Amino acid sequence: MPAALLNEDKTFDLQPSAPEAPGPGQVTLDVAWCGVCGTDLHIHKGHMDQRLSFPQVIGHEASAVVAALGEGVENVAVGDPVVVRPLDVQGECTASKRGYSHISSKMKFIGIDSPGAFQSHWNVPAELLHKLPEGLDLKTAAFVEPLAVACHDVRMARLESGERAVVLGGGPIGMLVAMVAKASGASVLLSEVNPTRLKLAESLGFSTVNPAEADIEEAVKEFTAGDGAEIVFEVSGAAGPIEMMTKLAGVRGRVVVVAIVPKPVPVDLFQVFWKELQIIGTRVYEPEDYDRAIAMLAAGQIDTGKLITGEYELSRIGEAFESLGSSPEHMKVLIDCQK
Amino acid sequence: MPAALLNEDKTFDLQPSAPEAPGPGQVTLDVAWCGVCGTDLHIHKGHMDQRLSFPQVIGHEASAVVAALGEGVENVAVGDPVVVRPLDVQGECTASKRGYSHISSKMKFIGIDSPGAFQSHWNVPAELLHKLPEGLDLKTAAFVEPLAVACHDVRMARLESGERAVVLGGGPIGMLVAMVAKASGASVLLSEVNPTRLKLAESLGFSTVNPAEADIEEAVKEFTAGDGAEIVFEVSGAAGPIEMMTKLAGVRGRVVVVAIVPKPVPVDLFQVFWKELQIIGTRVYEPEDYDRAIAMLAAGQIDTGKLITGEYELSRIGEAFESLGSSPEHMKVLIDCQK
Repeated sequence: MPAALLNEDKTFDLQPSAPEAPGPGQVTLDVAWCGVCGTDLHIHKGHMDQRLSFPQVIGHEASAVVAALGEGVENVAVGDPVVVRPLDVQGECTASKRGYSHISSKMKFIGIDSPGAFQSHWNVPAELLHKLPEGLDLKTAAFVEPLAVACHDVRMARLESGERAVVLGGGPIGMLVAMVAKASGASVLLSEVNPTRLKLAESLGFSTVNPAEADIEEAVKEFTAGDGAEIVFEVSGAAGPIEMMTKLAGVRGRVVVVAIVPKPVPVDLFQVFWKELQIIGTRVYEPEDYDRAIAMLAAGQIDTGKLITGEYELSRIGEAFESLGSSPEHMKVLIDCQK
Repeated sequence: MPAALLNEDKTFDLQPSAPEAPGPGQVTLDVAWCGVCGTDLHIHKGHMDQRLSFPQVIGHEASAVVAALGEGVENVAVGDPVVVRPLDVQGECTASKRGYSHISSKMKFIGIDSPGAFQSHWNVPAELLHKLPEGLDLKTAAFVEPLAVACHDVRMARLESGERAVVLGGGPIGMLVAMVAKASGASVLLSEVNPTRLKLAESLGFSTVNPAEADIEEAVKEFTAGDGAEIVFEVSGAAGPIEMMTKLAGVRGRVVVVAIVPKPVPVDLFQVFWKELQIIGTRVYEPEDYDRAIAMLAAGQIDTGKLITGEYELSRIGEAFESLGSSPEHMKVLIDCQK
């Protein structure tokens, strides 16, 4: 029953997981599965050292079973299968007062700013739990967190059935955004250069384009009968697609910035003006996005099996990170946190 | 009764204005006043030669009186005071089918793509006329067109009373955007480097900041009690304010791109992500924006007198362009088209 502590030199130490008893309002979870996020990879590459407290347990895409209740906890019972919405808001700010706690300046992201889920037992605030319905297995439920990101992106895009969406970038989030858009009634064209990911996208029923081999503007024109896309999701974070994104949208189109773009990059604002586009920023998720993600998984609307490219026991987490960080064939790697 | 023909060498030739009889659906107008737009200055500087047919009459900020009716015209009568919405849509496209004729690819902008208002008599499609109410004088009505731009910008921003708006750039459109925002219940901070324009902005009741002398981020923080602005209007088109614009907006703020930015420029998309901003493109106006502009002017809500920095007879239009193009003291110059 280990806990995986990430050291400053980015090695993992495995230690016995022995959390304190849960405090008031907290629960102790037996973590079941936890996915490795792109953000975890960034942490592992040393890009976010200033936010971590080494040695630290990371991980935030977890499913779990409630093992013990702290004082005053009434929303869950011992034995409940749950997922954790890892946004711990401690105090009020302009955002939270307006109802946007998910982008609060007082928000701590659990698994980055505080200990995460790559451990057998994990203490978290009970108010951040979402109960899982019967029949949704814990491995599938490890997709709730990244799927909630995609649900938020699609909701913020105000996507309507029948619209045509272009997704730039076919990593795990891009693929989930495409899946949610399709499940919401859109037709989807996914742009990606990685042949493995293109093949996966095709097997999931998306139209695809490889912009290294074809003219993406022409592909989008063809896909939309000359209109341009109603919605463009920019999930790549790369300069080329960002400069292209506004060209691909049609009149009054919405361009959703999903990727994190750390520095100012050129954007074609003439297109924004000419076609009265909207560029929409989205960040993490709100409780209703978690609810929708859970409902979609429970209804079998998202084929997560096709996205899993690796499963590792927690005792082999170092190998999991090495493999994911070095192989372009990977999509989603899950960690079994009880082993 | 002249017509001012702009030659390819950017001199004006004055010739007698003697239009043909109005065709079916057209009217002949006696043009009263016509403002000189920034676009007219661009044309005069040779930036838009490919769209013009020299020698050509330009000008599109006109007020007028109906002088003659072509066959089938029923919406106006001879003697009616009117303004012209200069967007001549000839045919259908994706935009017009969706109800966005103002950004139609089949749209010809009268005064650029076809003859404009710097002439005593002018033939235009009757369907583009808006009748003026009693008591709205024709000189003030020459502001309807640029004011409709501002009304469109504020409407697209979904500005609500009590919000705090930052306007980047205090030229004629920036000043009108600020005036409409204020009349709509917003408090306004206007950023501008030109001392004459800053003084004018103050006399109109706006807070001001000169970003050449003060830290604009700090000024916006102070103006919004630390929240950031609900709305930022980028009217300057300059690289500095464009890179700054997303920093000045608060959570879920709207950043309205009013200026025409011909080439891709760096935009800080991290801010868009972090605060879930929206960048909103706006272009010209729709009929309801004309209606609101007319109503605001008729109600005396916009003090246009403060914006007029020159009045010229049409026979002196060359001088008007020279003066406007060379003096940073100018705001709006009007041409009396009957003289």
